[in-house]
Amino acid sequence: MNELTDFGFGTQIRKSPYFDATLRWGATGFSVYNHMYIPRDFGDPEQNFWTLVNAAILCDVAVERQVEITGPDAARFTQMLTPRNLSNMAVGQCKYVLITNAEGGILNDPIALRLGDDHFWLSLADSDILLWAQGLAVHSGLDVTIREPDVSPLQLQGPQSRAIMQALFGDEILDLRYFWLREMELDGIPLVVSRTGWSSELGYEIYLRDSASGNMLWETIMAAGAPFGLKPGHTSTIRRIEGGMLSYHADMDAQTNPFELGLDRLVDLEMEADFIGKAALQRIRAEGPARKQVGLVIEGAPLTGPNTTFWPILVNGARVGKVTSAVHSPRLDQNIALALVDIDAPGIGAEVEVVTLAGPRPARIVERPFYDPRKSLAAA
Amino acid sequence: MNELTDFGFGTQIRKSPYFDATLRWGATGFSVYNHMYIPRDFGDPEQNFWTLVNAAILCDVAVERQVEITGPDAARFTQMLTPRNLSNMAVGQCKYVLITNAEGGILNDPIALRLGDDHFWLSLADSDILLWAQGLAVHSGLDVTIREPDVSPLQLQGPQSRAIMQALFGDEILDLRYFWLREMELDGIPLVVSRTGWSSELGYEIYLRDSASGNMLWETIMAAGAPFGLKPGHTSTIRRIEGGMLSYHADMDAQTNPFELGLDRLVDLEMEADFIGKAALQRIRAEGPARKQVGLVIEGAPLTGPNTTFWPILVNGARVGKVTSAVHSPRLDQNIALALVDIDAPGIGAEVEVVTLAGPRPARIVERPFYDPRKSLAAA
Repeated sequence: MNELTDFGFGTQIRKSPYFDATLRWGATGFSVYNHMYIPRDFGDPEQNFWTLVNAAILCDVAVERQVEITGPDAARFTQMLTPRNLSNMAVGQCKYVLITNAEGGILNDPIALRLGDDHFWLSLADSDILLWAQGLAVHSGLDVTIREPDVSPLQLQGPQSRAIMQALFGDEILDLRYFWLREMELDGIPLVVSRTGWSSELGYEIYLRDSASGNMLWETIMAAGAPFGLKPGHTSTIRRIEGGMLSYHADMDAQTNPFELGLDRLVDLEMEADFIGKAALQRIRAEGPARKQVGLVIEGAPLTGPNTTFWPILVNGARVGKVTSAVHSPRLDQNIALALVDIDAPGIGAEVEVVTLAGPRPARIVERPFYDPRKSLAAA
Repeated sequence: MNELTDFGFGTQIRKSPYFDATLRWGATGFSVYNHMYIPRDFGDPEQNFWTLVNAAILCDVAVERQVEITGPDAARFTQMLTPRNLSNMAVGQCKYVLITNAEGGILNDPIALRLGDDHFWLSLADSDILLWAQGLAVHSGLDVTIREPDVSPLQLQGPQSRAIMQALFGDEILDLRYFWLREMELDGIPLVVSRTGWSSELGYEIYLRDSASGNMLWETIMAAGAPFGLKPGHTSTIRRIEGGMLSYHADMDAQTNPFELGLDRLVDLEMEADFIGKAALQRIRAEGPARKQVGLVIEGAPLTGPNTTFWPILVNGARVGKVTSAVHSPRLDQNIALALVDIDAPGIGAEVEVVTLAGPRPARIVERPFYDPRKSLAAA
């Protein structure tokens, strides 16, 4: 019981079905996400990065809670939640979507999964979209049931993940395409498996559908992965910033709209269907967004860890924006960052100043992503 | 910057306007609540308890985010959110309310504050009621504006809190009644002050309305409180369990209804107005609830800290419920707990068995609260 009380765990924050397993496998630090503990440290974030890009890591992401939408109007209701056009989404397909509010602000950026004609999941980032969707449903006049099912995802990510999946599920897994899903079993444990993940590497998500089997599933995967160098791990801040992937609350929030992030591809203002935020996003597109997301390379010594505050960005002493996520990449040997700046701030190649907690540093605006994911996918 | 990276802080979780102040005043541990850091340790939880019950503590509870409801239909919309009858709620009054979903399950247990005829705040426990309320509003046909204002509460709690408030605000604060609020200023800082708190002791909440002034407000209160023994602190798990106060996610959740908790006084099924969950709660009342909340005294050595899991409760080897919150009270020299048990489980005085992580212990079902708050209020 000592290690538990040392972490200060309580019953006010939920534990994942893999919680005991991650402690047993050496988790040394946790954060909180969707009212649940998530392991965020297994001793060395840089080693976690190298294992991810060279072999594979298994991550407890049970915090990615699912919102399940079923019923005769499930497709229409799910479309109402997002500006992305889902009209051609097949059963078995996954799509990265934004959930927007009436002002066009982003409430979440989940993966949508279509399990059946009238059966969707939203695999959430950190906000209570269950409450948003249930609230919307009350007066919507649509015939839907919205609940949180007993589903707890793991992420198996890295170039060796394909070989590990083959060892677990056989050859039939090899034709599972990028952003498609399949309902499967492993030793009788009911699962959904998808070719998705939040790592910028080749990878899979394994959605456990029976929380009582968390320990068995974790151990089965770790055992199958051992010959391939699989280690327990956590989302790599290094790799996700290299890949330009966004973290909700850090890189965007309800005051950020899709156009500011350059995510126009996730917004279809011409589709016939209505969705929450359509009028606001039409207005924002007509007027043009007020800010833009950019990449930054920050000069000076390697950052000792991710930024703990939003660092101001200055041009000639005037504030033009903020760094939202920053880290040192050991592979690129650069301090790389994502930032939101005023729409008329200087563009690619411009020199700016970043005010870190330890003082100002010169920085340069660059393209994202910092590392091309196609290279790592090709290497797999 | 070292102490920050040591805590593993990031930009994905928000910081309170008092964050720097609490670090400077010795916060040694944080938890996460409503996507924000909250100090939960200043070195010794038992000393925190004794300071609370003998003098006063100042707690950063900026995590109690406010949902602001304004507009011509604000009163009607706010009533729609809760089974408590708000028809006689005066401007300037506060009420402890439950937010229920369509099944009668509890989504949150905030304090509602009425700042004007058409102006309400909900001071939240840990769930995104902002999203629930905004979702409900979309198709409600009611003319309301729902947003999170720039408001960050502090709690000043303990028998000396009244004298400290008098030192800060003068004699006019002395007639502020229990569960009433007042709009005030302190050195030009805009505030709402209420006679509320989550401590079971005499106390006040001070709602800062300008987050840029967090540091100044904290230091002003700590300086005024020094002669009265004021210390920085945090919610005392000991005192709140003694008082039978509930913690959302631990003692109740969306699968718990008000009748199971004995909170019938917060439900008015006879009022004319409709609210979310009315039909479900009528059905539950007619059928009777399936579970009941009880107090427990757990035998054996003092618990070394609060329970980190939900401990099963057994009668003759059969599971009849779970311990939701447990702690050792140094004042009562007893291990006290809140529990949810089957409705037909034995009542007050019955002997049961509690299965802690370290093994089973005998326990006895008792009345709540464990310590009568009127005694401590009379002593103030």
